[in-house]
Amino acid sequence: MKNETFDLQEKLQALLKAQRDISPQGKVANYIPALAEINPNLMGVSVATIDGKVFGAGDDKVPFSIQSISKVFGLVMAMNRVGDKLWERVNMEPSGQPFNSIIQLEWEKGIPRNPVINAGALLIADVLTSHFSSSKLAFLSFMRTLSDDKNVYIDKHIYQSELSHGNRNAALAYLMKSFNNIQADVPEVLSHYFTQCSVSMSCQQLAQSLLFLANKGVDPRNNKVICSAKDAHRVNAILSTSGMYDQSGEFAFSVGLPAKSGVGGGLIAIVPNHGVICTWSPRLNRFGNSVVGVNLVAAIAEELGVSIYH
Amino acid sequence: MKNETFDLQEKLQALLKAQRDISPQGKVANYIPALAEINPNLMGVSVATIDGKVFGAGDDKVPFSIQSISKVFGLVMAMNRVGDKLWERVNMEPSGQPFNSIIQLEWEKGIPRNPVINAGALLIADVLTSHFSSSKLAFLSFMRTLSDDKNVYIDKHIYQSELSHGNRNAALAYLMKSFNNIQADVPEVLSHYFTQCSVSMSCQQLAQSLLFLANKGVDPRNNKVICSAKDAHRVNAILSTSGMYDQSGEFAFSVGLPAKSGVGGGLIAIVPNHGVICTWSPRLNRFGNSVVGVNLVAAIAEELGVSIYH
Amino acid sequence: MKNETFDLQEKLQALLKAQRDISPQGKVANYIPALAEINPNLMGVSVATIDGKVFGAGDDKVPFSIQSISKVFGLVMAMNRVGDKLWERVNMEPSGQPFNSIIQLEWEKGIPRNPVINAGALLIADVLTSHFSSSKLAFLSFMRTLSDDKNVYIDKHIYQSELSHGNRNAALAYLMKSFNNIQADVPEVLSHYFTQCSVSMSCQQLAQSLLFLANKGVDPRNNKVICSAKDAHRVNAILSTSGMYDQSGEFAFSVGLPAKSGVGGGLIAIVPNHGVICTWSPRLNRFGNSVVGVNLVAAIAEELGVSIYH
Amino acid sequence: MKNETFDLQEKLQALLKAQRDISPQGKVANYIPALAEINPNLMGVSVATIDGKVFGAGDDKVPFSIQSISKVFGLVMAMNRVGDKLWERVNMEPSGQPFNSIIQLEWEKGIPRNPVINAGALLIADVLTSHFSSSKLAFLSFMRTLSDDKNVYIDKHIYQSELSHGNRNAALAYLMKSFNNIQADVPEVLSHYFTQCSVSMSCQQLAQSLLFLANKGVDPRNNKVICSAKDAHRVNAILSTSGMYDQSGEFAFSVGLPAKSGVGGGLIAIVPNHGVICTWSPRLNRFGNSVVGVNLVAAIAEELGVSIYH
Repeated sequence: MKNETFDLQEKLQALLKAQRDISPQGKVANYIPALAEINPNLMGVSVATIDGKVFGAGDDKVPFSIQSISKVFGLVMAMNRVGDKLWERVNMEPSGQPFNSIIQLEWEKGIPRNPVINAGALLIADVLTSHFSSSKLAFLSFMRTLSDDKNVYIDKHIYQSELSHGNRNAALAYLMKSFNNIQADVPEVLSHYFTQCSVSMSCQQLAQSLLFLANKGVDPRNNKVICSAKDAHRVNAILSTSGMYDQSGEFAFSVGLPAKSGVGGGLIAIVPNHGVICTWSPRLNRFGNSVVGVNLVAAIAEELGVSIYH
Repeated sequence: MKNETFDLQEKLQALLKAQRDISPQGKVANYIPALAEINPNLMGVSVATIDGKVFGAGDDKVPFSIQSISKVFGLVMAMNRVGDKLWERVNMEPSGQPFNSIIQLEWEKGIPRNPVINAGALLIADVLTSHFSSSKLAFLSFMRTLSDDKNVYIDKHIYQSELSHGNRNAALAYLMKSFNNIQADVPEVLSHYFTQCSVSMSCQQLAQSLLFLANKGVDPRNNKVICSAKDAHRVNAILSTSGMYDQSGEFAFSVGLPAKSGVGGGLIAIVPNHGVICTWSPRLNRFGNSVVGVNLVAAIAEELGVSIYH
Repeated sequence: MKNETFDLQEKLQALLKAQRDISPQGKVANYIPALAEINPNLMGVSVATIDGKVFGAGDDKVPFSIQSISKVFGLVMAMNRVGDKLWERVNMEPSGQPFNSIIQLEWEKGIPRNPVINAGALLIADVLTSHFSSSKLAFLSFMRTLSDDKNVYIDKHIYQSELSHGNRNAALAYLMKSFNNIQADVPEVLSHYFTQCSVSMSCQQLAQSLLFLANKGVDPRNNKVICSAKDAHRVNAILSTSGMYDQSGEFAFSVGLPAKSGVGGGLIAIVPNHGVICTWSPRLNRFGNSVVGVNLVAAIAEELGVSIYH
Repeated sequence: MKNETFDLQEKLQALLKAQRDISPQGKVANYIPALAEINPNLMGVSVATIDGKVFGAGDDKVPFSIQSISKVFGLVMAMNRVGDKLWERVNMEPSGQPFNSIIQLEWEKGIPRNPVINAGALLIADVLTSHFSSSKLAFLSFMRTLSDDKNVYIDKHIYQSELSHGNRNAALAYLMKSFNNIQADVPEVLSHYFTQCSVSMSCQQLAQSLLFLANKGVDPRNNKVICSAKDAHRVNAILSTSGMYDQSGEFAFSVGLPAKSGVGGGLIAIVPNHGVICTWSPRLNRFGNSVVGVNLVAAIAEELGVSIYH
């Protein structure tokens, strides 16, 4: 990063204001009713650096439904728990298909393309369900530890809504089970998965929680090893090729940072050796990524002169 | 890179020797007879740095058929020639399919997923054919300029063999033409494409020719702008998500450098801000990538401590 | 039929013996354990004619698991119940895919290709579940009425085995539900479907139960209208294009009768205006059809000189 | 047929008039310019019976481009020439895909699903090209013999138009060639195929030319064996499951006759043991079948009480 501390706080405010000033584009996720209830105009951004600084603007302290951003944390937990055997059950290739496609899964006999498409995340949920006595509590505990905030919570209203609109995820899980690639009972796996997706956190909390991915697996705030350097590398690689659904290539092309979005409107981007950017704005583009989020991360990356591709 | 100059020359020799010492794996490409004639035991490696050094070991000065590595150069020429309009005709997403799959192309109505799968490279060949009075000469000239070697040549024997075994590429091109996404006559497009693939170059030449991708578009040897910094970034992004066929994700996962392989056994990897690695060994794994090449690049990257993901 | 009464009884015995004399081919279905327990050497055949005769040989009175043959009866019940509206939710085209493929279903947005592939039969199960206070009893009652045998029963052992190995069917049902094409709860739909599949009947019972399809919808034994002539025509049409899984075309090609097979080894074939053939032999070919069944029906059809295509 | 001679002539006129009286639906084929030039209001019908009668109404003597109806004749020629070995190179299963889909072909490694989809007809064209010194003349001669009219001709204008818009067919042929399932040169195969499609014949000529399929392979007008009874059966089976593109199931369902349509607006239907119906009206529905043709054949079949499914 060029010189990120000087006036980053002001910069973030200016960049956020610029986004507010253009007429809103995209649509709030409506595939589950509870997500559709959100105020679409909320907008926040936070940048956390590995040398301990945190910058923010807008609604950066308002918790929102992290949704698929939870896949990053679930993956780290599963890698820690089962090691390299994990990769016998899930691949690490880009999917080249919309995020919830069942076709690839059938084609490849129940082995998901990677852990950040829905099928792969369900497989991770199965691993966690099978390896923890209470995987939901373990996940929540992991999130509270990383964010250093005991108040991080599961939004029950979102959870119930997910559960009653989870038919496609159920189809994916039962299909994998028919290929013997799900071990626990499917309802239990779905319950873990929807719990994970229903965690509420703010931009500020998410940015700080993911600093270990910018720092070779070590949380720079307390020097705790969250995962191995090798696994931090792997997660960043997967997020780079597959973290933004079917817009992953375009995001690499135009921004160039490992990133993960969620249909709750959140978006996190890792800047290796420097820090983490997190944005939140609920309106989504046709790929399921936050419109303002993509714009903001691109602008911040450009401002800071960071990209992994040059 | 940690300290690349010290003993890199010796290191490369040691790493190459280590590869020679393990029993050979993989198979020489046999989809065209001419490629099958190569001595499978040839093996070379070259590293060129942006500060002007070149290191090498083994058969690093022996020319080989660059095959799909030519896609990188063709893409740069096309971007230079038509600018951003190029991206209306080809996407920049990972394909999630084997390199020559026709299914995705049908599904997405003649728009290739990216310029480094075969369909995309044929589209690039169409752009070049349509925009240069003699696209083949222009391509050869580009290669000679970049390698600073007027003796770079087209292997006619390989070219003829490609031409008489190019039915799948013909199918891809005609399918795109049926969607009005090929402008020139298909035989002309194929002729350009096979010409491009039939260029012969050595590891040393390839490594030096691609330094501009490690240096924001500028050839560090003479400060000539080969492409814009933005386009160098884009090429590196595409190579990172899609340059290694259906092993791209795994290569990102375990190595972490923008790379492109060819079925002639060549493999190039870009180390942004540092240099280029090029390896050659004809035996291929099931994905069509050089077995030794993947091993060598991984070992060199580890040795130098370089990866874009940490 | 040429002159079916003369010595059909003897003919059936001779044809069955001929099948016993060749070394057994094919494998008993093992996708559910309970089906794998059957004696693979059991073999029966029955021919019922619309003028009231019944011929048989071998184990023609031994009940077996009717499995997918139940799809024919479920379809008739659903057509009777909801009329032409049924065809808004399921198509009547051949599938061109293995019987349980989920790909076509995704492609065509939850509308099954026809009612005799698994997805279509699950949709029919949903219709029955939604339109009968107790669809399972209604189905069993329908089978008892048609076979004129109050002892027709559901094999609980088979049912339990189906239930605990029904993950792919669950995937199909949840996928359709995600497209809003399943109305009841999926577990209820599956429970009806597996119940249907678990009915046990003999060749003799099945042949007689289906006479209405050879007789424009009317049961010739009592002149009761089982379905309209139009619907009998439709069922025969669907069975002709799609009743034999991915061997339907070949069966039309070489035999030429509307037919339906089940993985329990049963096979029924309709001879319009004449009667019904039913065979049973548990060993299946790679398409899931009874090896002996296909041979026997072909031999009987040839013997009788019946086919709908000449 | 109930009593077909009495007033069939008048019936046909009445049925045709009924079609003229409803407002026209569907669109003339425009995928090749030459077909788009036709007067969309032309309309003809002809019925030929195996006892030697011919009935007709409207433009039943006006020649039109037979297009895919030619696939029926090409198939018969190929079966006669190479016998059962033909079925090693083409399957006989319904396709479950739009008529020109390349996906199935890729999936099944260059083996077309059946001989009446485009890929299958191109394979037949390859067989004819490879087995006749001049396959085009042989085809034309076959058509002239069957229609007993030396003036049957190839429409050169249509042929040229096909040739210059045949990219998708070229893609299919090159894809099969890449799987080694095309023997001749692709341009030669395409030239034969487009020649076949460009033959012009009238309803009256087509109906009479196909009488052998209603008569176990024998032309009833002169008792010449055109093909074996077995092959006539096979052709009728294939036409029943696959002759009407992706409307084949629906046509079986509602009409119930082996049939083949062409995008020139022609439609032929075989009534086994009775005769042949041929209609012509250029406006097509979304499946590529003539709107009026489907209506007329359905009405005539109902009037005559003929269907193979009851």
